[in-house]
Amino acid sequence: MRNIKLIIEYDGKGFNGWQKQPNKLNIQGEIERAIEEITGEKIDLIASGRTDAGVHSLGQTANFKTNSKIEIEKFAKAINSKLKKSIVIKSAEEVDERFHSRYSVKSKTYRYVINNSENGSAIYRGLEYNISNKLDYKKMNEAIKYFEGEHDFKAFKASGTSSKSSVRKILKGVVKKEGERIIIELTGTGFLYNMVRIISGTLVDVGLGKIAPEEITNIIESKDRKNAGKTLPAHGLFLVKVEY
Amino acid sequence: MRNIKLIIEYDGKGFNGWQKQPNKLNIQGEIERAIEEITGEKIDLIASGRTDAGVHSLGQTANFKTNSKIEIEKFAKAINSKLKKSIVIKSAEEVDERFHSRYSVKSKTYRYVINNSENGSAIYRGLEYNISNKLDYKKMNEAIKYFEGEHDFKAFKASGTSSKSSVRKILKGVVKKEGERIIIELTGTGFLYNMVRIISGTLVDVGLGKIAPEEITNIIESKDRKNAGKTLPAHGLFLVKVEY
Repeated sequence: MRNIKLIIEYDGKGFNGWQKQPNKLNIQGEIERAIEEITGEKIDLIASGRTDAGVHSLGQTANFKTNSKIEIEKFAKAINSKLKKSIVIKSAEEVDERFHSRYSVKSKTYRYVINNSENGSAIYRGLEYNISNKLDYKKMNEAIKYFEGEHDFKAFKASGTSSKSSVRKILKGVVKKEGERIIIELTGTGFLYNMVRIISGTLVDVGLGKIAPEEITNIIESKDRKNAGKTLPAHGLFLVKVEY
Repeated sequence: MRNIKLIIEYDGKGFNGWQKQPNKLNIQGEIERAIEEITGEKIDLIASGRTDAGVHSLGQTANFKTNSKIEIEKFAKAINSKLKKSIVIKSAEEVDERFHSRYSVKSKTYRYVINNSENGSAIYRGLEYNISNKLDYKKMNEAIKYFEGEHDFKAFKASGTSSKSSVRKILKGVVKKEGERIIIELTGTGFLYNMVRIISGTLVDVGLGKIAPEEITNIIESKDRKNAGKTLPAHGLFLVKVEY
């Protein structure tokens, strides 16, 4: 069987997240339906991981097995022709049969976008979170460095979610300013449920002067969700890319 | 009377352009209504110029006269509280009584955004025009320089529109590539109806190799709309800023 790898962009608004579930509009289900329409086969689409309701993707990666004879150059356009405009297959590539979108992940990069102007944006309002109070992005950039490395991120996962281990490794964190926007970027080998949104909320507390950058270490070590900041809303979060 | 200058961002989708007209949703009418709700006065909002149906703005500028006593720092937020989310007053400033948003304009900058990837974007699809065929943006950047200076732009205005003179002055034109996007930017003392969209369509013909950059001069001199390119769609166009 052929193994096809897809890079997928989507506007998370209106979707109940990546994962397939009955009676709720979801991205996985939409793409599986589109692929079934063009190949005539029922397929299982495996992603690098789920994204939550409302989260956007510039580079979600997924793969599926097929016996279809459709030329690889035509796959993306063919699937797109059966999809809503808010999901776009950016590229399709034939890969080794052992490639697995989830197990083969080396790292993922997420971006959280804050509009730090008084009145926010009319045009990009669905793609960023508006915070009117001025944030010190340099302090936020100092603080994000404390997340780098391997840590138990129990304080930064949604309470009530179970996962065997909450140890994860952050390879790189950076906070930068672009015009009226503050962009938080995190690259890591894996992330816990809501982890990027909770880290971003904690960095906002740093930017507001409520927490000093060096206090991040204590918050991590406390392993207590109550010591971290708020979970920022989903619509400011982007899965940027997945590396293999 | 106080003279208040507003900087206005809007997502052009769903509006029938800037200008007030009965029974059609328009930006001027929405903002006039919002100002009337907070001041209790019927006001006339004068903009730097109209924008067409579907065109976006990052920096439309408008002014109005009022006897309202509302503090200037509170004006933008107050107006925004009465507006749809697709219009945002970015700032309000009290200016000299002689300031006039249209007559005082020194220059305007427009941006046309082309997504030059095969499958386009899911997230930004309402804010750019997708062209799948590869464009040579360097040739487009060569070509745009021929528009700089004072010319009769009759070949680049919508046919059937009347305006006393079609002579306009372009101060600067640049075409640049940002990832999968090609951005056309034009600054001029004024623009004819559809002029930026027709220039952009002509530059696309250059990018596709249908026209050589140096042919732009002949097209301008012909003063014949038939020799210029297509009018690109409104949803890729942004009024970026107005200088006074």
